[in-house]
Amino acid sequence: MNTSIDATHDPALKSWLESANDPSIDFPIQNLPFGRFRRAEDMDWRIGVAIGDQVLDLRRAGIIQSYDMNRLMRLSKEPRQALRQAVSEGLRHGSPHEARFREALTPMSRVELGLPCVIGDYTDFYTSIHHATTVGKQFRPDNPLLPNYKWVPIGYHGRASSIGVSAPALGHSFQRPHGQTKAPDADAPSVGPSRRLDYELELGIFIGRPNPIGEPVRMADAEEHVFGLALFNDWTARDIQSWEYQPLGPFLSKNFASTVSPWIVTMDALAPFREPCTRPRGDPAPLPYLDSADNRERGAIAIELEVWLQTANMRAAGHAGDCIARSNYRDAYWTVDQLVAHHTINGCNLRDGDLFGSGTLSGPRPEQAGSLLELTQGGRQPLRLSNAETRAFLEDGDTVILRGFCERDGYRRIGFGECRGTVMPARPL
Amino acid sequence: MNTSIDATHDPALKSWLESANDPSIDFPIQNLPFGRFRRAEDMDWRIGVAIGDQVLDLRRAGIIQSYDMNRLMRLSKEPRQALRQAVSEGLRHGSPHEARFREALTPMSRVELGLPCVIGDYTDFYTSIHHATTVGKQFRPDNPLLPNYKWVPIGYHGRASSIGVSAPALGHSFQRPHGQTKAPDADAPSVGPSRRLDYELELGIFIGRPNPIGEPVRMADAEEHVFGLALFNDWTARDIQSWEYQPLGPFLSKNFASTVSPWIVTMDALAPFREPCTRPRGDPAPLPYLDSADNRERGAIAIELEVWLQTANMRAAGHAGDCIARSNYRDAYWTVDQLVAHHTINGCNLRDGDLFGSGTLSGPRPEQAGSLLELTQGGRQPLRLSNAETRAFLEDGDTVILRGFCERDGYRRIGFGECRGTVMPARPL
Repeated sequence: MNTSIDATHDPALKSWLESANDPSIDFPIQNLPFGRFRRAEDMDWRIGVAIGDQVLDLRRAGIIQSYDMNRLMRLSKEPRQALRQAVSEGLRHGSPHEARFREALTPMSRVELGLPCVIGDYTDFYTSIHHATTVGKQFRPDNPLLPNYKWVPIGYHGRASSIGVSAPALGHSFQRPHGQTKAPDADAPSVGPSRRLDYELELGIFIGRPNPIGEPVRMADAEEHVFGLALFNDWTARDIQSWEYQPLGPFLSKNFASTVSPWIVTMDALAPFREPCTRPRGDPAPLPYLDSADNRERGAIAIELEVWLQTANMRAAGHAGDCIARSNYRDAYWTVDQLVAHHTINGCNLRDGDLFGSGTLSGPRPEQAGSLLELTQGGRQPLRLSNAETRAFLEDGDTVILRGFCERDGYRRIGFGECRGTVMPARPL
Repeated sequence: MNTSIDATHDPALKSWLESANDPSIDFPIQNLPFGRFRRAEDMDWRIGVAIGDQVLDLRRAGIIQSYDMNRLMRLSKEPRQALRQAVSEGLRHGSPHEARFREALTPMSRVELGLPCVIGDYTDFYTSIHHATTVGKQFRPDNPLLPNYKWVPIGYHGRASSIGVSAPALGHSFQRPHGQTKAPDADAPSVGPSRRLDYELELGIFIGRPNPIGEPVRMADAEEHVFGLALFNDWTARDIQSWEYQPLGPFLSKNFASTVSPWIVTMDALAPFREPCTRPRGDPAPLPYLDSADNRERGAIAIELEVWLQTANMRAAGHAGDCIARSNYRDAYWTVDQLVAHHTINGCNLRDGDLFGSGTLSGPRPEQAGSLLELTQGGRQPLRLSNAETRAFLEDGDTVILRGFCERDGYRRIGFGECRGTVMPARPL
């Protein structure tokens, strides 16, 4: 076990920063997520911790010297926990360092937030059995789940260059992609803007400590390699996907844009929200390289997830949007540790800053689906929104907002902030 | 058109360096491929050009100031061609700069060669219709080629972290990967070292100039974004692949190791070897975003390719290995320009140093197959080697050597060097 509950999780802890003590805020002193920011006068990204409605500059607070987030992510357990402890103590009510820390704060509304680190390789997984089953049914009604699903944590490589970061206002905005599509009854494909653009509700898992090539990470050590989690939207053009994906998987249907939230909530912060694995009785036991007593007892993480949709009309009317789905990360079939152990069983090397997508996190009930493909039955049953608009797939001007938070009796609420992105009209070719 | 034949291609050009004038050498003065090297006393990688049996240090020769290969790769046409011109003139017989250039030489046998650049994203394509057909037949005898093949340059993302560089002696050596496999008649999968380890004969295509996200690269501009080509071996564990690859494509069956050769032969050097596209009459015309007159006339590149296999027994006996397949890059169905145009049609951004794999370059005849999967009919008809050994798939100690070169009447032979890698025994789990 690499993380545990300690004094930094004490729900009685208060900060001298009043905004951090608001019970509804995402970033109380028990959270302390890491990100990169710059003020108008900064050339380079700086390492910050979100606290209340402020960003703490770790270098100005005298906590670290480096601007290099990837280097910070490589820290092993003891220095990593010491860093969390030092930030917690400095922000705590009555801290002797209050003055120094106060000088290192900037209001979050006045900084630019960057990608939280340099992302080397990005791998997307497929950990929700509910998503895999629902999507599988659309292609193979009698046999929705492929035979490998309960044995192999299915994953594939994604594109790192086009991952953007959520921002205030419209968030990460991107143009509707062009691509080849082919209607089932057409003789030939054609090229144009995607007409079946979708979001995918995911969590992003950031690797911290690397492993050398050739050296698999064992389940017992897997958590040591994970720095933390963020929200992740794996935008997908369903019409491009269905024409291109055989036989080698998704490509242009996804690599035009993905959006990650700016704050990495650390595995340390999430320690109070661990739960037993939810693998149903009767399913095959994981193979030994994917199994451990610790994983069975606390492999899952209870994170409430929400998808909000704000159309351009809603935005014009000052409407914050509709919550169109909720699910919980505890329902994933494969745990974070299992993803790390599987990814490295063949000796593949992970590097600091590598990103895993969890795959679309749909829950067991239909209204918990993490994509429009599922919520609208492949577009056949459009959603009716609160302002009487309907959506089969995303339209230009639509903003999708992912939110996530952990709540448990006896602990402070821990939030992930927002992952916000907006579909802009396709550029003329 | 971005490259053309100029004075640097003149077959009459000779160097004051005698080894560069040997007619059988890969690196004559007409080639001038780029790579990164360091001598025992160097901390950092330096940018070099291969010439004869030597490496020219571009900084010591006074040609550039930077150690940053990715920056060099971003050069636009004019400065890039000026750089080639300056190197050619300095190495030319009678050059006034001979003394300065001579001081910048180190024998290739005395340097370490690194990956030629920092590789951001790696994408693997599937450009040989002969490979796609032969492999497809093993799964779907009646319908080997999927309906999208002649329309979509099929590609998928690969893993950048585990790409290694060929080196002298054993080359890039890696351990046989462990993984999940399942025999068709087994009730459950098991975990162990791959028993169907294969190579794939590919070319690597290095991106030079980046494109901004959201801005597709048109066919007319595509070549401007390509820096050059190298040899590439996309090692594949066929037994892991067949169990894991549905529905999202290859993953652990490939990401344990890939090997690239150390020298990037530039598109400028390859200008004399361009040929018309080989798309057969009767096939659908490429969609407009994948078509141009220039591509039809000179989209293909005639590069002879060879696969050599040297077993441990051969090595012990001083035997250089058997040439087990030959093919030619001219037979690829999709051209380099088409891969760039397709990859970016959805706005995906390419960055300097990004690598495309061509996919396995099998030719039209069975003996031109670029993998053992094809040469041995899925392992059912093992190869008989010259020393009476047989191979269905690769065994521990086997070294695979890829070679490539261009030859045409009226031009000097241009070589790619070697891409050499050796399978080491699996590490006990």
